[in-house]
Amino acid sequence: MSLIDDLQWRYATKKMNGKAVQQEKVDYIVEAARLAPTSSGLQPYKVIEITNPDLKAKIQPIAFGQSQIQDASHLLVFAAYDEYTKERVDATFAQQEQERDLPAGFSDAYKNQLFGTLQRQTSEQHFAHAARQAYIGFGLAIAAAAEQRVDATPMEGFDNAQLDELLGLPALGLRSVTILALGYRDAENDWLVNLKKVRVPKEDFVIRHN
Amino acid sequence: MSLIDDLQWRYATKKMNGKAVQQEKVDYIVEAARLAPTSSGLQPYKVIEITNPDLKAKIQPIAFGQSQIQDASHLLVFAAYDEYTKERVDATFAQQEQERDLPAGFSDAYKNQLFGTLQRQTSEQHFAHAARQAYIGFGLAIAAAAEQRVDATPMEGFDNAQLDELLGLPALGLRSVTILALGYRDAENDWLVNLKKVRVPKEDFVIRHN
Repeated sequence: MSLIDDLQWRYATKKMNGKAVQQEKVDYIVEAARLAPTSSGLQPYKVIEITNPDLKAKIQPIAFGQSQIQDASHLLVFAAYDEYTKERVDATFAQQEQERDLPAGFSDAYKNQLFGTLQRQTSEQHFAHAARQAYIGFGLAIAAAAEQRVDATPMEGFDNAQLDELLGLPALGLRSVTILALGYRDAENDWLVNLKKVRVPKEDFVIRHN
Repeated sequence: MSLIDDLQWRYATKKMNGKAVQQEKVDYIVEAARLAPTSSGLQPYKVIEITNPDLKAKIQPIAFGQSQIQDASHLLVFAAYDEYTKERVDATFAQQEQERDLPAGFSDAYKNQLFGTLQRQTSEQHFAHAARQAYIGFGLAIAAAAEQRVDATPMEGFDNAQLDELLGLPALGLRSVTILALGYRDAENDWLVNLKKVRVPKEDFVIRHN
């Protein structure tokens, strides 16, 4: 099966049946997000993997009562850096130099220029940039779930501040951006499962300059 | 090959060899972006596909002289809505109702609530939201390129306002967010090609609540 087949197969599952996704498959999905490219390799986000039923029960009202929060076996919360600190930027380049057997300080010119640019930005701009990177990983996790024939619901409909508080994200310098609920469709009770996938036609989606 | 294999294969190509990617493969890559999920199915972005050499020559200085702009055979510029207008939101739901054989106005309750929320936001907030959606498609295009063994460079390093002006995006209600350069690696002259892929270790990337 190809990526296009996988994307045709998937849909934003509205009703899940409570069956658990094998941990091995969840690990694969998270691995796709971990391998996602990010700007300067900064990987400015984390994935919070939640299976705890009590915690899911507390998240459900924060996500406007959506049933997938409880019926999914795993919730992946994508949470982006609230700012690019010097420590975070330094850590990225130190790791790159070490794993690539480059001399310490090899990347200093690039790193200092990057950090100079970041210092002229607000933390809100940092977060906006980090959040976009998280969405690349989010997209790849969606593709990985589809490849594994695991149903998934991409969710933005929740109160970010309340979720951050519940998960203790401020203390970690993180802010939630999106949730991917993983489970299996309840085909008999999902109103969306049999509806046609609708997309903008290709001729309206692409603008060509040949 | 699996998505993980594809993601292990790919890297942010720094030097391309000028060889053209078959149009069929580019179409496949764009199709992956077109099929990407977006919030409420709004698909608030377009892909501008550029092969014209004169136009690429004009873009190169806007992208700080990066060689891939000219050596890639295709540039995909992802450009997000500058705002969610009533017309745009209406068009999405009208298309869904039509293609799903639902009565016109079937989605009005949902649509009106969504549009009410959007009306309380600034156009800058609209754009920030639309840009995130574009990054999901961007991620899937990166995965599709890797699956096709087409090299790609995800690029944020360009002057957005200048590129918007050059491509006439303001008149289309669009703002550029990112570029995906497609081509083939020049393995002998690419400093990055043989360097180890570096990622945050899984134990630092994932936070578990079991």
